[in-house]
Amino acid sequence: MSSTQVPSIPDLIPRIREFVDHELIPLEPAFLKNAQALEPALHQLRGRVKELGLWGLALPADLGGHALRLTDFALVSEELGRTPIGHFVFGCQAPDIGNLELLHLHATAEQRTKFLEPLAAGLTRSCFAMTEPESAGSNPTALTTRAVREGDEYVINGHKWFASSADGASFAIIMAVTNPEAATHQRATMLIAPTDQPGWKFVRNISVMGEAHGGYFSHAEIRLENLRVPVANRLGAEGEGFKLAQQRLGPGRIHHCMRWIGLCARAQEELCRRAVAREISPGVKLADTQIAQMWIAENAADIACSRALALQVAARAEADGFKAAREDISIIKFQVAGALQRVLDRALQAHGALGMTDDTIIAWAFRHERAARIYDGPDEVHKLSVARQILKRFGRS
Amino acid sequence: MSSTQVPSIPDLIPRIREFVDHELIPLEPAFLKNAQALEPALHQLRGRVKELGLWGLALPADLGGHALRLTDFALVSEELGRTPIGHFVFGCQAPDIGNLELLHLHATAEQRTKFLEPLAAGLTRSCFAMTEPESAGSNPTALTTRAVREGDEYVINGHKWFASSADGASFAIIMAVTNPEAATHQRATMLIAPTDQPGWKFVRNISVMGEAHGGYFSHAEIRLENLRVPVANRLGAEGEGFKLAQQRLGPGRIHHCMRWIGLCARAQEELCRRAVAREISPGVKLADTQIAQMWIAENAADIACSRALALQVAARAEADGFKAAREDISIIKFQVAGALQRVLDRALQAHGALGMTDDTIIAWAFRHERAARIYDGPDEVHKLSVARQILKRFGRS
Amino acid sequence: MSSTQVPSIPDLIPRIREFVDHELIPLEPAFLKNAQALEPALHQLRGRVKELGLWGLALPADLGGHALRLTDFALVSEELGRTPIGHFVFGCQAPDIGNLELLHLHATAEQRTKFLEPLAAGLTRSCFAMTEPESAGSNPTALTTRAVREGDEYVINGHKWFASSADGASFAIIMAVTNPEAATHQRATMLIAPTDQPGWKFVRNISVMGEAHGGYFSHAEIRLENLRVPVANRLGAEGEGFKLAQQRLGPGRIHHCMRWIGLCARAQEELCRRAVAREISPGVKLADTQIAQMWIAENAADIACSRALALQVAARAEADGFKAAREDISIIKFQVAGALQRVLDRALQAHGALGMTDDTIIAWAFRHERAARIYDGPDEVHKLSVARQILKRFGRS
Amino acid sequence: MSSTQVPSIPDLIPRIREFVDHELIPLEPAFLKNAQALEPALHQLRGRVKELGLWGLALPADLGGHALRLTDFALVSEELGRTPIGHFVFGCQAPDIGNLELLHLHATAEQRTKFLEPLAAGLTRSCFAMTEPESAGSNPTALTTRAVREGDEYVINGHKWFASSADGASFAIIMAVTNPEAATHQRATMLIAPTDQPGWKFVRNISVMGEAHGGYFSHAEIRLENLRVPVANRLGAEGEGFKLAQQRLGPGRIHHCMRWIGLCARAQEELCRRAVAREISPGVKLADTQIAQMWIAENAADIACSRALALQVAARAEADGFKAAREDISIIKFQVAGALQRVLDRALQAHGALGMTDDTIIAWAFRHERAARIYDGPDEVHKLSVARQILKRFGRS
Repeated sequence: MSSTQVPSIPDLIPRIREFVDHELIPLEPAFLKNAQALEPALHQLRGRVKELGLWGLALPADLGGHALRLTDFALVSEELGRTPIGHFVFGCQAPDIGNLELLHLHATAEQRTKFLEPLAAGLTRSCFAMTEPESAGSNPTALTTRAVREGDEYVINGHKWFASSADGASFAIIMAVTNPEAATHQRATMLIAPTDQPGWKFVRNISVMGEAHGGYFSHAEIRLENLRVPVANRLGAEGEGFKLAQQRLGPGRIHHCMRWIGLCARAQEELCRRAVAREISPGVKLADTQIAQMWIAENAADIACSRALALQVAARAEADGFKAAREDISIIKFQVAGALQRVLDRALQAHGALGMTDDTIIAWAFRHERAARIYDGPDEVHKLSVARQILKRFGRS
Repeated sequence: MSSTQVPSIPDLIPRIREFVDHELIPLEPAFLKNAQALEPALHQLRGRVKELGLWGLALPADLGGHALRLTDFALVSEELGRTPIGHFVFGCQAPDIGNLELLHLHATAEQRTKFLEPLAAGLTRSCFAMTEPESAGSNPTALTTRAVREGDEYVINGHKWFASSADGASFAIIMAVTNPEAATHQRATMLIAPTDQPGWKFVRNISVMGEAHGGYFSHAEIRLENLRVPVANRLGAEGEGFKLAQQRLGPGRIHHCMRWIGLCARAQEELCRRAVAREISPGVKLADTQIAQMWIAENAADIACSRALALQVAARAEADGFKAAREDISIIKFQVAGALQRVLDRALQAHGALGMTDDTIIAWAFRHERAARIYDGPDEVHKLSVARQILKRFGRS
Repeated sequence: MSSTQVPSIPDLIPRIREFVDHELIPLEPAFLKNAQALEPALHQLRGRVKELGLWGLALPADLGGHALRLTDFALVSEELGRTPIGHFVFGCQAPDIGNLELLHLHATAEQRTKFLEPLAAGLTRSCFAMTEPESAGSNPTALTTRAVREGDEYVINGHKWFASSADGASFAIIMAVTNPEAATHQRATMLIAPTDQPGWKFVRNISVMGEAHGGYFSHAEIRLENLRVPVANRLGAEGEGFKLAQQRLGPGRIHHCMRWIGLCARAQEELCRRAVAREISPGVKLADTQIAQMWIAENAADIACSRALALQVAARAEADGFKAAREDISIIKFQVAGALQRVLDRALQAHGALGMTDDTIIAWAFRHERAARIYDGPDEVHKLSVARQILKRFGRS
Repeated sequence: MSSTQVPSIPDLIPRIREFVDHELIPLEPAFLKNAQALEPALHQLRGRVKELGLWGLALPADLGGHALRLTDFALVSEELGRTPIGHFVFGCQAPDIGNLELLHLHATAEQRTKFLEPLAAGLTRSCFAMTEPESAGSNPTALTTRAVREGDEYVINGHKWFASSADGASFAIIMAVTNPEAATHQRATMLIAPTDQPGWKFVRNISVMGEAHGGYFSHAEIRLENLRVPVANRLGAEGEGFKLAQQRLGPGRIHHCMRWIGLCARAQEELCRRAVAREISPGVKLADTQIAQMWIAENAADIACSRALALQVAARAEADGFKAAREDISIIKFQVAGALQRVLDRALQAHGALGMTDDTIIAWAFRHERAARIYDGPDEVHKLSVARQILKRFGRS
C-alpha cells in the first residue's frame, strides 16, 4: 500500500504540480459553470489520487495517510492552492481537514469508528458549526447556542451560519454553550451531531457573492431546534470547546495561508501569460509596458514575503507548538490575506474586461477570496491581538 | 402633462430619494436573487415614474424629457446610483442613455422615428457594440471589425463582446472600420443594426463575476457574420465613429462617476447602520470602535472629494464643452472608480461574514463594480492620458 | 492708498504668481541655507509688496487690508503656498494671521493699539502658546498651564512647546486654565503676554527635522514661571479660551489646506520640469516613461480633488459659518495633508538622489510638511471627530 | 587575540545588543546635535569594541576579523542598525565595508598594504565615487567620467556626487570609463585614488535633508580634473568596473536591508514605549487605543515579513552565490525599503509633535532613510528588473 512509501517533498511537489496542471486546472471552466455538478467527477479523481499514493498527505499513518510534517504539508498546500479544487481532490479540504485533526486528537474509540474513519477515507463529508449570525464571529465567547444536558443527551438550540459544506455533510461538529456560568473560555463544548436528526434544520445555502451553490461548495444557515445529541458524541470534556477550537484554528490558518499563496502564484502565472500574449498596440505586448512590469514585481514581492514568513512560522509552530507561535500565526493570517487581495486585484486589472469574466479563474478568486480577510478571524481582530501581545512586553497589562 | 412643469433640483432630489428608498431598495433582494426575472416589475415601476413626471430627466424636451443640465442631472444620477436598479427605472440607464444622446445629436429623421423615439419612450432597448475581445479596449483605433460597402448596404464582419444589454435589445450601434487606410482616428464608422437580422449572431451572455444573467442585466458576446446594414442606418458620416464615440463617452463618464458616488453613499449608509446596530461585546457597538470610525471617516473623505471634483468637472464641461474638460474627465474617471473600490471594501469588511453574502447590496457592488476601474477606459489609460496632456504644457511634444 | 483699490481675483492671482516666481522662488536656495539669515531680506520684500498694494490681503480694511473673502483668499493662499516664504512676505503667515483674526474680533481698544495694529503693519511678530509637551495636543481640555488671578494680574505657570515663531515675537497669546472647576470646555482663557517679562523663560528653539533655526522660522519651548499678565491683557472673557481657539483654528485649517495645495502644485511643477529635462537612457526622457506618467497623473488627481473640496468647504464656511462647516473642515484637514504627503513623496522619488538634497525645495517640504498630518489636530483626531458626527445622524448618541 | 575565539551568534547577539543599548543609544542626542563633532568619541568606542573582541565581524580572519557568514552577519547588522552609529563603531559601515570586500577580493599585494590593511584596522576611511549628477545613477553604463591612460598613469576627468564620506577619506575607489568603445558593461574600470592629489577637487558636502554635516557623516560632490592615478592603483582588470560594482552591490544590499530592519525594530520599540507611557485622556494610554494597536500590528507584519525574506535571501546568496540570488536581492531591496518607510511613518505619527523633533531618533530616520528607496538602485529600477527576469520564464525575450 502506498502509505508505506512515504514520499519525499522534492519528489512529491513536481508530481502534485503535474496532477494539478493536467487533471485539475482543465476542469476549472466546468467548476466555474456549476461547482456542485462537478462534485462526482472530483470524487472520481480522488480515486486517481489514491492510486498514485497521494491521498491524505496530512493524515496520520494509522488512518492511511503520509503524516507529512506541517512544514512539508505547507509546500503541498501551496501547490494544491493553485486551483480551487485542489484540496478537495487530495482529501485535505477545509472544513474536513480541521475536523479530522480534532477527531484524531480527541475522538473516543466509538467516535473514531463512526465519524473519523469514514471521513479520513473520503467516504463522508462533515461540517463545523460555530459561527452565528447574531454574535460577532470574532468572539467565540459570545456564543448564544445552548446545549442543555438531559440524561444521556444534550439538547441543542441555536442558530448557525457559514457552516461551510453542511449541505451533504454526514455530521457536524457543533460549538454550544454547556456551562454558561463558567469562566468565559470554559463555557462551550463541542458536540458531534449527525445531520439526519429532526432538530437539525437546514435553512438554506447562503448566497455568497452571487452564488449559493450546493454540496461541498456551499455555506449553510442552520437552525438547531431541540437537536438531541448523545453524550457519547461529545468531543473532549465539557467546557473544552474553546480550547479545541483554538487547536483547530492554529494549523487551519497556516493551511489557509499556504493555499492563498498558491492562489497568488497562480494569479501571477495568469498575469504573466496574459502579458506576454496580449498585444496592446502594434508590436507592443502588455509585458513590454512598465505598468505591467510594476504589477508583476509587486506581486512577486507580496508572494515572496508571504511565503518566507509563512514557512518560517510553520517551522516555529512545528518546533515549539501552536501556542508559542500564536502571535506569528495572527501576523501571517492578516499579512497573507492582504497580499492575496492585492495580487488578485493586480491580476484582474491586467486582464482588463476579461478579468471580470469567468473565462479565467481570476474573477472567482477575487470575489470569493475576499473572505480571506474575514473568516478565521478578521484582519482587525488579529491585528489587535498581535499588538496587545507586543505591548505586554513593554509593560502594558 | 407633467413634463411641462420642469421641476427644480431642490424639489426633485427629495422626491427621487423617497422613490428610491421606498420603491426600489425594497426590491433589491429580488434583484439579487434573479435580476432578469425582476425586469417586468421594473417596467411597471417606469409607469409610476412617468406618472410622477420623473421620466427621462436627462432627455431633451422634444422627446418628452426635462432636459436637465449636466450639473443637475449629476445630482439626480447620484441619487439613482444608490441602488443598482435606479437608472433603469428612471429611463436613464447605460447603454441606452449614451445611445439616446448620440441619436439625438446625429440621427436622421428616419433614424429618429425608427430608433430614437421608441427608445426614449422606454419601449425598446439598445446596445453599443464597440469592445472586441481580440483588441485592447482602450485603443479604439485597433478595431478589427470591418464594414464593407456593397451598394446601399454595409456588410459587417467582426467579433464583439461586453455589448451590455444586447440580450433583448432591438438594435445595436456598431463601431466598425470602414476606411482602413484613413488616419487612425478616421477609420471607424457607427452603424445602427437591428438585432433581428441573420448576420447578428448572439454567442452568449458572458458570465461576469459568476453571473451571466440575461435581458437588460447582461453583457453579450456577439459575432457579426456578413451582417447587412442599410447605408441609411449610418450614424453620422463615414469615418466619424471615433469622434462620435468620444462625444458619447464624455458625458457617460460623468454619469458613471455620479452613479458611483451614489453607490459609495449607499455603502456608507449601510456601514453606519450596521455599526450602530451591531454589538461586538457586551454594551459595545461596532460604531463605538476606533476602527469602524476610521473607516467611516475615510469613506466620508473619499466621497466628499469625489463629489466636489465631479460636480466641478460637470460644471466645466457644461460651460466649456467636453473637449475642454477632457483631462478633468479622465481624472474623475479613475479617481472616483478608485474611491468606489476603497469605500466598498471598507463597507464589506465592516459587515464581516454578512458582507460576503447577498443579504446586503455590498457584495454585489464589490464584485460587479470592480469593473469601474476597467470599462470606459481602464485607470492606466486615463492616467497616461492625463500625464501626457500635463507634460505637453511643460514642453514635451 | 492701495487698499482703496480692491483688486479682483482674476487680476490679483497672476500678479501674485509673477511676484512669487520672480522675487521669491529665486531666494529659496538662500532660504534653505539659512532661513533666519534671510529674514531681513524678506522684510525688505514686504516693502515691495506694500508698494504694489498687495499687503494684508486678508486683513480688514480698517487695518489697511483688502478684506478678501475666504474663498478669494483661498486662491491667494494657494499661490503663496508655492514657496515656503510666500505667506511671510505678503503678511499673512501663521501664526500671526490667526492672532490677527482673533485680535480683530476680540481685542479691546487698548489691545488693538498695543498689539493688533503694529502686528497688522508687519512691525512686530507674535506667537501662540497653546501646545504642551506633557498633554495631548489634540485635547485642549487637558491643558496643565495655570493662570491664577492675583489682583489686577494673572500669574501664569506652565510649560509650552511648538510655540511657532516665539523667537523674536513681541507678544504671545497664551492658553491657560483659569477656571479648573468649570465644565471642560470653559476652563481656559487666552492672555496676551509680552515676551520681555521675566516669567517668560525661553528654553530653546526645538530642533525639528534636524533644524532649530531661529527668528520667524522656529518652534520654541517656553517655560512660564510666575509670568505676570495684567487682566487688561485678557482676550475675551474668562473661560472663553477654548471657544476662541476654535474660532482661530477653523479658518486656519482652510488656510493651511490651500497653502498645502500650492505646495503640491509646486512639487508637481518641479516633477514635470525634471521629467522633461532628465535623460534616463539615450533619447529617452523620464517624462517618456509610464512610471513617471503614473506619478504625474496621481498627483494631478490628488491636487484636483483637494482643491475642489477645499474651495467648496471654504464657500460653505463663508456662507454658513465655521461651525456649520466643522465636519467638512476636518475632512479637508486630513485629506489635503494626506494628499500633500503623497504628492511630495512622488516628486521626491522622481528626482532620485537630487530629491534628497537641498538643491530643490522638495526635500524641505518632505521633511517639514510631514507635520501637516499632526499640527492643528492629527489625522486621527479629525477622523474620529468626523465619524462621530456622521454616526450621530444614524442614531448613535 | 580576539579573532581566534570566533564567537557564536547566540552568544554574540546579546553582547552586541547590550553594547548598542548602553554605549551607543545614549549618544544619539549628541549625534543628532552634531554628528561630525561626535566622530572622535566614536573612534574611542571602536577601541572598546576591539577590546571586547567584536571588531570587524565581517572581515576575513587574515585582516583580524571574524569572517562571519553572510547569514550570521545579517543578524549582527540588524542589531547594529538599531542606531545610526552602530555600524561605524563596529567597523562595518558603508561605504568602507563594501570597499573592504572589493579590496579583499581584488587588491594586489601593494594595494593591500597601502589601502586595505589600514582601512580594515579602522585607521583610515575611504569612499566610493560612482554616482554622477548628470547621468542616471541607476544606469552605470551611462557614466561620463573618463580615465585616459598616459604611460603609467590614468588621467581622470569627471564629476561625481553622493560620494558618501569622501570628506576625510584617505582614498576613493573611482568608477571611470576607460574603454568607451567596448560593450556597454565592459567600458568602466575601478581606480584607487588617494584624495590628497591636486586633481581631486572637493566641491562641497551636499546638503541632504537640511544637513551637510562633514567627516564620515557626509555626502560629497567632487570634480575630477586631470586627476592622475598610477596604473598600479587599478583594481582588477580594465573594463571590469561594472562586474566589480555588481559584486560590491549584492552583499551591500543585503547589509542595508538588515540594517533597515534593525531601524524598523528600533522605531517599533520607540512607538511601543511611547504608547505605554503617553496618557491621552484621564486613565487612557495611547497603547489602549485601537489606532495605536493597528499601527503596532502593521509594523510587526512589515518587520516580520522583511526579516523572514531577507534572511532567506541571505541564505540563498550564501549557498548559491549572489548572481543566483540577484532577483531575490532586488525584491528585498525595494520590499524592505518600503517597509522601512511605512514603519517610520507610523512611528512618527504615534509620537505626534514629538515625532517631528530631534528629541527622538525617529525624525532623523524618517528624513534620511527616505533615501533607502533611491540609493543602490531606486525601487522602480529593481521592480522593472525583477519583472523582466520573471517574464523571461514566460517566454518574453
